[in-house]
Amino acid sequence: MGTGFVSTAAPVSRLMEELQQLPGVGPKTAARLAYFLLRAPEAQARALAEAIVDIKEKIVLCSQCQNITESDPCPVCQNPARDHSRVCVVAEPLDILALERTGRYKGLYHVLHGLISPLEGIGPDQLKIKDLMARLNVGGVQELVLATNPNLEGDATAMYLHRMVTPLGLRVTRLARGLPVGGDLEYADEVTLGRALDGRQEM
Amino acid sequence: MGTGFVSTAAPVSRLMEELQQLPGVGPKTAARLAYFLLRAPEAQARALAEAIVDIKEKIVLCSQCQNITESDPCPVCQNPARDHSRVCVVAEPLDILALERTGRYKGLYHVLHGLISPLEGIGPDQLKIKDLMARLNVGGVQELVLATNPNLEGDATAMYLHRMVTPLGLRVTRLARGLPVGGDLEYADEVTLGRALDGRQEM
Repeated sequence: MGTGFVSTAAPVSRLMEELQQLPGVGPKTAARLAYFLLRAPEAQARALAEAIVDIKEKIVLCSQCQNITESDPCPVCQNPARDHSRVCVVAEPLDILALERTGRYKGLYHVLHGLISPLEGIGPDQLKIKDLMARLNVGGVQELVLATNPNLEGDATAMYLHRMVTPLGLRVTRLARGLPVGGDLEYADEVTLGRALDGRQEM
Repeated sequence: MGTGFVSTAAPVSRLMEELQQLPGVGPKTAARLAYFLLRAPEAQARALAEAIVDIKEKIVLCSQCQNITESDPCPVCQNPARDHSRVCVVAEPLDILALERTGRYKGLYHVLHGLISPLEGIGPDQLKIKDLMARLNVGGVQELVLATNPNLEGDATAMYLHRMVTPLGLRVTRLARGLPVGGDLEYADEVTLGRALDGRQEM
């Protein structure tokens, strides 16, 4: 310790550094979180630390759908009440939760764990596409629902998958584009509005 | 597993719940962080978990200034090059880092660990005020710099401390109020501008 500036104690700086690795956490948020944890009851801090270690130890990827799961195959793939002739392709496990919340889909899933993005150097080989093709080649799947994000990467991935599965002769659909429910026409961007016009549905 | 909705794996939900205890982390941020940690290298997740446990195990409060520290007394209180006749009172350890960054203060500190806030039920007894008084009663301190926040709680705490230490006959100062450097007069709120006028300085 010289006569210069004082910094915070080493374990606190280290925690701040680790927290800054998280998405959306800059130096100020990291400091706020670190000092919060310093003041939090020891049991709460330990519970968080254990939960972090636990997901690394207890979570695996389902060998069929590649979703995160505690048991392989995952509960969805194991569930005989679900429609095993439909597979919905998503980019991330979180997308499955969003689709399940709608209560409108009873088929199976396949998680790509990313989207094709030449800018970020992510090609088809880095995604779980080979696993999807192997699954489809086994047979039994009649419809592939492409539920990738409605953006550049999502569309590129959907196009790629469409081309890949065309020889298999199964039905390939993708989520409808249009106005978000509850949205305001006045504030819709022109691309969305254009898609809504193109895809207008009979009443 | 029934035929109903699918939720995420239990360890992931638990981690999301723990993350939601953090300030400023809602359900969506918690989900994003949890899935980030799932994908992160195991070493990174473990380093974060260990850093959290470490701050609980290795950090104590300095018995003199009540700042967080690995060694008691803390490096500031131990440092003979600092001016031991001045004590700057702050609400939180983070405030010390902000003051140190200015490079303009070479005295000691005292951390209250909060501010008087009747609305939140925080009175003087919940703060490290008794420790401050004990420290001042030992003698040797000539100036007390009140650096509590320029808001209701900070001002109330400063007033309270001022009254408490008046009998000791030491110099009591507080941080100047005025226009923030780099700010724009046009956008200054009237209270700040009023304080800047009241406290106008000779050029």
